[in-house]
Amino acid sequence: MSFKLPMSPYTDLEARFHRLQALRNALGVLHWDMATMMPPGGAEARAEQLAALNVVCHGMLTEPVVSDLLDHAEGGAASLDDWQRANLGEMRRQWIHATALDARLVEALSKACSACEQIWRDARPKGDFAMILPALTEVLRLVREAAAAKSARLGVDAYDALLDEYEPGGRAADIDRVFGDLAGFLPDLLARVLEHQARQPAPIDLPGPFPVEKQRLLGERIMRAMGFEFEHGRLDTSLHPFCGGMPDDVRITTRYAEDDFASAVMGVIHETGHALYERGLPRQWRHQPVGQARGMSLHESQSLLMEMQACRSAPFISFLAPLAREAFSGSGPAWDAANFQRVYTHVNPDFIRVEADEVTYPAHVILRYRLEKALIGGDMKLGDLPAAWNEGMKKLLGIVPPSDREGCLQDIHWYDGAWGYFPTYTLGAMTAAQLFDAACRAKPEIPGAIGKGDFAPLLAWLRANVHGQGSRLPARDLLTAATSRPLDPAVFKAHLERRYLN
Amino acid sequence: MSFKLPMSPYTDLEARFHRLQALRNALGVLHWDMATMMPPGGAEARAEQLAALNVVCHGMLTEPVVSDLLDHAEGGAASLDDWQRANLGEMRRQWIHATALDARLVEALSKACSACEQIWRDARPKGDFAMILPALTEVLRLVREAAAAKSARLGVDAYDALLDEYEPGGRAADIDRVFGDLAGFLPDLLARVLEHQARQPAPIDLPGPFPVEKQRLLGERIMRAMGFEFEHGRLDTSLHPFCGGMPDDVRITTRYAEDDFASAVMGVIHETGHALYERGLPRQWRHQPVGQARGMSLHESQSLLMEMQACRSAPFISFLAPLAREAFSGSGPAWDAANFQRVYTHVNPDFIRVEADEVTYPAHVILRYRLEKALIGGDMKLGDLPAAWNEGMKKLLGIVPPSDREGCLQDIHWYDGAWGYFPTYTLGAMTAAQLFDAACRAKPEIPGAIGKGDFAPLLAWLRANVHGQGSRLPARDLLTAATSRPLDPAVFKAHLERRYLN
Repeated sequence: MSFKLPMSPYTDLEARFHRLQALRNALGVLHWDMATMMPPGGAEARAEQLAALNVVCHGMLTEPVVSDLLDHAEGGAASLDDWQRANLGEMRRQWIHATALDARLVEALSKACSACEQIWRDARPKGDFAMILPALTEVLRLVREAAAAKSARLGVDAYDALLDEYEPGGRAADIDRVFGDLAGFLPDLLARVLEHQARQPAPIDLPGPFPVEKQRLLGERIMRAMGFEFEHGRLDTSLHPFCGGMPDDVRITTRYAEDDFASAVMGVIHETGHALYERGLPRQWRHQPVGQARGMSLHESQSLLMEMQACRSAPFISFLAPLAREAFSGSGPAWDAANFQRVYTHVNPDFIRVEADEVTYPAHVILRYRLEKALIGGDMKLGDLPAAWNEGMKKLLGIVPPSDREGCLQDIHWYDGAWGYFPTYTLGAMTAAQLFDAACRAKPEIPGAIGKGDFAPLLAWLRANVHGQGSRLPARDLLTAATSRPLDPAVFKAHLERRYLN
Repeated sequence: MSFKLPMSPYTDLEARFHRLQALRNALGVLHWDMATMMPPGGAEARAEQLAALNVVCHGMLTEPVVSDLLDHAEGGAASLDDWQRANLGEMRRQWIHATALDARLVEALSKACSACEQIWRDARPKGDFAMILPALTEVLRLVREAAAAKSARLGVDAYDALLDEYEPGGRAADIDRVFGDLAGFLPDLLARVLEHQARQPAPIDLPGPFPVEKQRLLGERIMRAMGFEFEHGRLDTSLHPFCGGMPDDVRITTRYAEDDFASAVMGVIHETGHALYERGLPRQWRHQPVGQARGMSLHESQSLLMEMQACRSAPFISFLAPLAREAFSGSGPAWDAANFQRVYTHVNPDFIRVEADEVTYPAHVILRYRLEKALIGGDMKLGDLPAAWNEGMKKLLGIVPPSDREGCLQDIHWYDGAWGYFPTYTLGAMTAAQLFDAACRAKPEIPGAIGKGDFAPLLAWLRANVHGQGSRLPARDLLTAATSRPLDPAVFKAHLERRYLN
């Protein structure tokens, strides 16, 4: 006979959250498949699967016994170590978010988002906002209902309640301050950059066409150099590039245009940054809340650190240019590193966020942030979104999209139900600058190594200071521990001035 | 104020089984992905996902309230229509299977099968049975535990309890009778066929290589002709061809060899037969038990009806040969329909079941059926399997596999936990012969249409008599309704004699 002790409340919770994370990983696979593999006729069935699985996950968190277990485990938290205590804290956080909503709302949200996203896939290429308006109205109605419910539980306002899902502890008041600082700095910087740029040689267009298969092979070559393990991941194509999956099976996508390889390559680098974060999460906490990524600002910091800090730097460009020349059998001055550098740091106010340069990108985010705050707060009607978008673009970047396709229809986020997400992009850009700066101070060999296609020193620093930390610390504490100071826009601003005015 | 009536027990059950089916569909996507897309390093995480989801599905069926609802709904069954009553019957059947097992066994089985299947992917190419033996021993131990538990609940013996999952109501005693009949008939037929064949011109080898991409395009061309809708499905590659997914998103796979396109084409046709069945299931019962396929014999009958009855027939071959010649820019007598006919009806006792001809195929199945019955019954040790396999092959077909790769390691089924499944292949072959015979009697235009690549008349008959029936009737009643008689091996035997002795 063997003798089995009853599980402690904490151990019981670990077992429950382990199963929950496995189901969330299953959701991750279903989402990836939907964006990459699923035939269009499978959308309705997929929406049913996602809704059923979301309801199951919600049900596991909201079972009454979980509440008791959390109370008991917190009562005995003194006997837990740091990681366990942080894990318990994350469990409580998830529990608060889940119990704020009832199962009916979870199911309705899941289905409304699936339906709206599916229509968006048609409406976007057509630039037809009217086509999506009813479905988006329903999504926003349910998102606002969820925001109100979470607002009451978290004791913050509706927008902050949504933001808290993506950026635990993030608050609009802090974002307003930082974005206000940037919004004051950027227009003047942009004017100076454009003036400076006008005095430099113009980038020479790289002559295509660039066969998709060769672009893919070049992308894979760079992914390997960056440390991506194909034993544990994939590269595919999708309408909207993303990184999905989970640490041991992390899947990125890009999109290709035959007349431009430069965007797809940089897209691959961006998503590889996300993938390396996922892959580097602490192995021993795989299926626990504390083992997951620490919020979306930090996630975006990892993609932008790679894309903007490391891979638009002169050392990396000097590594990339000959690789690309070889891949496409290029010749002539367009293929020189100097021209690549001009291509990859060319500043040009334009309509599409994901193709925006580093200097104008924050304006895209600030626009979306302001609009979604107004929509969530009830200060604006959804029908007025296209006009408000265009007006905002005009004010921020001095341009007006020719159609909603290049305007308020371009991003999947709102249509997919991700409200309160956009600000994390620019918070991520600032975090990336600060982390890269700290990494290079700690390991001065990093830029030189990157110039040889060797990302090992950089990756080692990120593994130790960011990836391997999981959700052990709040994002701001993690950043402070890694860089010796809290988020400081000055580092980002200095980076932009250094890169674009010299 | 709106006023909502409480749901009837039957309606409540429908809502529960709807969610359950959505989760099973999610499992289907995860299985498909595992076989086609997943990087090897994702296996462990995937096993966790499958186990968690299997436990959730099991939990939904075994909730105490389901038992009460079933009792109450059965008490009020007089008010239900035919389909609803059949649906309720299927719910009860699923409930019995589920409640026979506890959650611990469900989870252990799911994980053991995932682990064993993953090792099999390595062990098969190496022909290394010793490598897989420990994992397979664990799978068999758990399968036998499940069989014993279900045996007690169903009041049938252990093998029948497993068979019942794949072939509801199927019994080994019936199979023994039919297989005994065939086992008596086939050796003599095989001798006569080989003698007859020796007097005919030998098939001429089709000269390769055949680029995979061209094979794929030819396969898709034929799938379209057969009625496969790519809006609702996909064709991919996998080690072991299969049909997965669900009616609105049905996904088939094949495998390609550069030196032989004939196998891949026939493999595609076979899986398309499965896919058309799934796609034709009754739309209004999508997420209900009665809307699912009626057992594996009938499923296999649909693939074999297409592969063996329709597409190895002279009319179809006369359609296929010029298509293939064009696809591969072939020329010469090897590309004549007459030679294709010889290639596709060539009889040759060989080692691999999925490549076996129609005459020797049943021997492969009879061997596996006898072996798995002995293993489940405890009459044989797993360590003795390779020797018993080779001995059986010698007795049944007069040949001995050179290694376990061509022997007991060739099929995924046992390693994946599918015990009690194999007999459905040959039951399916007999059912296919009987259904095709009935279809052609009812619609004499079918063979001529197939000769023009027009499957519409055949598909219409199958939709009405098989696919659209879902699980409304027991398999034997469905067959009797469609063909005016129960399963009769004489039709299959007559088909073989007609095709292979004339």
